[in-house]
Amino acid sequence: MTAEEKPLILIADPEPRTLDMIFEPDDLRRLHALGEVIVHADGSRLAAADLEAALASAKVVIGQVDLPAERLSRMPNLRGVINVEGNFLPNVDYDHCFAHGIHVLVTSPVFATSVAETALGMALDLSREITATHEAFRDGSEKWGLASNAGSFLLTGAKVGIVGLGDLGTALRRMLVPFHCEVRVYDPWQPERRILEQNCIPSGLDELLSASRVVFLFASSTSENQGFIGARELALMPKGAVLLLMSRAGIVDFPALEEALRSGHIRAGIDVFPVEPLSADAPLRKLDGVILSSHRSGGMRESFLEIGRLVLADTELLLRGLPPQICKRAERETVARMRSKPVEVS
Amino acid sequence: MTAEEKPLILIADPEPRTLDMIFEPDDLRRLHALGEVIVHADGSRLAAADLEAALASAKVVIGQVDLPAERLSRMPNLRGVINVEGNFLPNVDYDHCFAHGIHVLVTSPVFATSVAETALGMALDLSREITATHEAFRDGSEKWGLASNAGSFLLTGAKVGIVGLGDLGTALRRMLVPFHCEVRVYDPWQPERRILEQNCIPSGLDELLSASRVVFLFASSTSENQGFIGARELALMPKGAVLLLMSRAGIVDFPALEEALRSGHIRAGIDVFPVEPLSADAPLRKLDGVILSSHRSGGMRESFLEIGRLVLADTELLLRGLPPQICKRAERETVARMRSKPVEVS
Amino acid sequence: MTAEEKPLILIADPEPRTLDMIFEPDDLRRLHALGEVIVHADGSRLAAADLEAALASAKVVIGQVDLPAERLSRMPNLRGVINVEGNFLPNVDYDHCFAHGIHVLVTSPVFATSVAETALGMALDLSREITATHEAFRDGSEKWGLASNAGSFLLTGAKVGIVGLGDLGTALRRMLVPFHCEVRVYDPWQPERRILEQNCIPSGLDELLSASRVVFLFASSTSENQGFIGARELALMPKGAVLLLMSRAGIVDFPALEEALRSGHIRAGIDVFPVEPLSADAPLRKLDGVILSSHRSGGMRESFLEIGRLVLADTELLLRGLPPQICKRAERETVARMRSKPVEVS
Amino acid sequence: MTAEEKPLILIADPEPRTLDMIFEPDDLRRLHALGEVIVHADGSRLAAADLEAALASAKVVIGQVDLPAERLSRMPNLRGVINVEGNFLPNVDYDHCFAHGIHVLVTSPVFATSVAETALGMALDLSREITATHEAFRDGSEKWGLASNAGSFLLTGAKVGIVGLGDLGTALRRMLVPFHCEVRVYDPWQPERRILEQNCIPSGLDELLSASRVVFLFASSTSENQGFIGARELALMPKGAVLLLMSRAGIVDFPALEEALRSGHIRAGIDVFPVEPLSADAPLRKLDGVILSSHRSGGMRESFLEIGRLVLADTELLLRGLPPQICKRAERETVARMRSKPVEVS
Repeated sequence: MTAEEKPLILIADPEPRTLDMIFEPDDLRRLHALGEVIVHADGSRLAAADLEAALASAKVVIGQVDLPAERLSRMPNLRGVINVEGNFLPNVDYDHCFAHGIHVLVTSPVFATSVAETALGMALDLSREITATHEAFRDGSEKWGLASNAGSFLLTGAKVGIVGLGDLGTALRRMLVPFHCEVRVYDPWQPERRILEQNCIPSGLDELLSASRVVFLFASSTSENQGFIGARELALMPKGAVLLLMSRAGIVDFPALEEALRSGHIRAGIDVFPVEPLSADAPLRKLDGVILSSHRSGGMRESFLEIGRLVLADTELLLRGLPPQICKRAERETVARMRSKPVEVS
Repeated sequence: MTAEEKPLILIADPEPRTLDMIFEPDDLRRLHALGEVIVHADGSRLAAADLEAALASAKVVIGQVDLPAERLSRMPNLRGVINVEGNFLPNVDYDHCFAHGIHVLVTSPVFATSVAETALGMALDLSREITATHEAFRDGSEKWGLASNAGSFLLTGAKVGIVGLGDLGTALRRMLVPFHCEVRVYDPWQPERRILEQNCIPSGLDELLSASRVVFLFASSTSENQGFIGARELALMPKGAVLLLMSRAGIVDFPALEEALRSGHIRAGIDVFPVEPLSADAPLRKLDGVILSSHRSGGMRESFLEIGRLVLADTELLLRGLPPQICKRAERETVARMRSKPVEVS
Repeated sequence: MTAEEKPLILIADPEPRTLDMIFEPDDLRRLHALGEVIVHADGSRLAAADLEAALASAKVVIGQVDLPAERLSRMPNLRGVINVEGNFLPNVDYDHCFAHGIHVLVTSPVFATSVAETALGMALDLSREITATHEAFRDGSEKWGLASNAGSFLLTGAKVGIVGLGDLGTALRRMLVPFHCEVRVYDPWQPERRILEQNCIPSGLDELLSASRVVFLFASSTSENQGFIGARELALMPKGAVLLLMSRAGIVDFPALEEALRSGHIRAGIDVFPVEPLSADAPLRKLDGVILSSHRSGGMRESFLEIGRLVLADTELLLRGLPPQICKRAERETVARMRSKPVEVS
Repeated sequence: MTAEEKPLILIADPEPRTLDMIFEPDDLRRLHALGEVIVHADGSRLAAADLEAALASAKVVIGQVDLPAERLSRMPNLRGVINVEGNFLPNVDYDHCFAHGIHVLVTSPVFATSVAETALGMALDLSREITATHEAFRDGSEKWGLASNAGSFLLTGAKVGIVGLGDLGTALRRMLVPFHCEVRVYDPWQPERRILEQNCIPSGLDELLSASRVVFLFASSTSENQGFIGARELALMPKGAVLLLMSRAGIVDFPALEEALRSGHIRAGIDVFPVEPLSADAPLRKLDGVILSSHRSGGMRESFLEIGRLVLADTELLLRGLPPQICKRAERETVARMRSKPVEVS
């Protein structure tokens, strides 16, 4: 095979990721071994004509470059587009891709482990009042012994609800196995069978909220579910229950959540907010029964380096003429409903 | 069987536990169904002669009543003594019991789940800086995104050390399974085989401390291991490593631990202290990189109610002439080495 | 919704399956609740015009009816085609389906549990010489005690190879977990990552055969792998190793397999044959070290009833405008390479 | 420590085991490193006086040498006796040992894995009719496809009963985990709690037999349970159910078992017989629905080599003054009830 015949892998507009952030040196070497790699990224921009030429030859595109139908129609070799930001963005003509057998992929599964760890850590913390006790130590007001555990409960054997059994929910479910919880799942995009396979109970949302002492929110933000966890839903939760908001702020009615915390009805761990950073004078900062986290559950250096490994695995399959197996595929039926805002800063 | 022939179960000096605390009504009913139950406890004390008479007939004694050899020699029916406080105390003549086939049992396994949950919660919290970030939110100094995770690491795949693979360590080990950690164990009382069976690497203490990013201390306090985690040992730990002290304060050199925290060398979760409550002006209260907990990891209401269930299970076996299977037995070789202070207040 | 607006579900040419065989009454009722169900099957054939009319309206087609491009072009509502025989057949224009977003599905995962159970049963049987010993009892030649185990080995801890880590291989892998085997996998269609995720070692075929004491063959028959287990490959296996042929006869060179058995080099469990039924005078019937099975590892009544449940689950998703999640999808890249012969008789 | 001060380890009457059979060279070297090892065994017999002298000094005795009270009273250093045959024999004065803190141990857990594998292999074989189909191939009478599976059922999801949840039952229970069976356990020596911990349902014998499609018999033979599986019990089993007799022939009424097989009521895998070898003209040899096995489920070379490893692990602990942890201990309450016949030939 001559150099010209090597398949072209184009990295285009990977921002907010940088190559350093997502590829370990060895993984980058392995990518180069798969084909000719051309980079169009901050610090290494192609001229417009060169970019178009590269697009016209590319077999795999890695990054968030605009791919309207007109451009795609000039890309006859294209087999796959791999988004490394994490959300399916509207700058790709998905219909064209579906019609022409071009896989559009995201590497979002890389965040599952990290988010699930944080969610479990916060759940244990809130159910056992670890942070609250520690805060009491700071001002000398802590209680000792049995009295200190009056509001605590064991996660082991507790009834748990998971809203959204995608990558994140599945990762968390696995971490719950040793705790022998009864786990209810609400996920309208999943068939009952998938839920049962993970040893969970398919459930309606209201039933889940009423029955569970710990509820994990992992649902994507879609055109249909804005603010679907509101005052009515929070009121269904048992007193003292624990809510973990890990995915998207848009799915929760924040004023209602704040009120449920202020009244002491529930406790919550919150990693995402309607406006980030959270304003300095937000009342949430002073409430009891809450653990605040600055949209940091997923963004570990280790998770970002996983992106490169997923890209590598599926690029290899695509170039061998096989279907991708590792990244998450855009699906014709659901991609248009996704509503997550892209991340601006890694 | 006439009433007089029913085997006698004597509950004597269960303090600091009360019967309410350790028996759910239904479990107490089941105990009464097993034999004649006589109670000598706060609020229901027997006269001295009645107590001696009850002891002389008892088949099973539940509680921490003094059992010197002289008294034991007047107890021909005795098959088992079940301590409900949690530590083997020196007020029992163990040699007499071993020679006469009297099982001496403690219900300490009831605390394993609760302690392991707290230990895991603190480990996730410290490795991901959950409490520290939350404290920053309180004063508006939190960082956002990737920058906020500079000092965080995943538990998944991390190297972990467990010092003491008894009930507590075993419970924690099970909770670690989903995290695919490489786990080293130091436990001089366990054969290699038991350690390997739990998919751990038998290890010396120094090797464990040097290799592990998270170290759980579950060792009992014995006549041989006072302060064995000292300055030298703490210095072996990698910078930024996480230490969880869950069992007994006596095994750690506290001034050395405080120094290791102050210097930022390690982070720690601490549930036990040399003097409890911790003094109001203890410098530990102000350090970074620490989570403080008021000897509360085990003492959940749910754990105390487990005591009754363990008592019930082994009492039933003892009365049927079978060996006990659920509580922990005093062992001739090790009981004399135990050094835990009894708990005074539940 | 009026009756006319109910989505049309067309069952067409399900043979060799009958509706009784694949649907329990309750599942069939649930299918009818999802839409209007029209059946074109043995005993209930539509007139040609009625069939065309039903096809023209159908949202979901269940069965193996011919779907050339010309017919598909007259099916504007079609969202999915669910094959209930088990193999992707050449009578569907896949390109048309891919271009138009029509999912083509098979229910082959239903056989995974049943095949894996048989494979494990045969592997235990051959490694422990269960059937061979039983045959010796029949003629009074059995040995007793340790001597009888001279050729036996434990599966626990043995090195195992799996060729083909699809549904069947994955089901078997899960059943091997308690045996703590070192498992190598050869599967050129799977990325390393998927293999590692199942706690297996990605391996070349030769390495796998040389290293493994038990080898499971689950590979599909494709245009590229006819007879790829031949004399050279069998010779790589250690003496006394066990081979399980569970998927397709086409992947093995049968004369070479027969010779490897005759010489005593390996033992084998064989569920599929180049010509079925196996001829009455086939020498295979008389060899030692073999367990013969009449293409029956998958075809349990319980497996067939699973077909209906998979059909139901994905039909429901398709009619709700969601992507199917349970059946196996035809993939543009691989569907043309499949070479399995359709089954003629259930 | 001078040579004379090395603790004495006496191997005395290990028969029917030989040292070669139970110790790999490296394990034997490790045993010699623990103390002075003296051997009194076939091919290396001590003079009577030398044997008595060795007994008088021994800290650990390995083997089945007679240990009546009178001899034990001359053995002041003795900490443990490790039987390597597998059954607690009546030639040891257990009361003396219990009174003096001498541990009496057997290495029977070494057979658990091997027996459980055979039991599972036979259960899969019988439920799927693997051997029966193979026998049909031998005479050309096999059926093909679905018809061949008329009498088969999946183990996955089946209701299973385990009689005796000791080492063998526990090993089997672990192997059943991937099959998601509902498992009932009858074991009058185990508390409910131990049964529940293994995710089983504590059950009476009759309930277990009536409810289970596969029943594993692992019960020890005791003075109380001779023939407790008789005609009445076998009649409780559902038609077509599968019985695995793996532990001791004494617990089953064999004529009743034979009749239940002859009538086709149940199928069975049988590894132990009232008289071994089974007589050449035993009708059992000709019945359908049975798999016969010549008392060989446990006696693998690999199992025997495990004996040495268990001996090594507990000898090390005993010599360090710690309680043994690996072998099974004689219990004061149960040792006298054991009724197994010793094995005469390995």
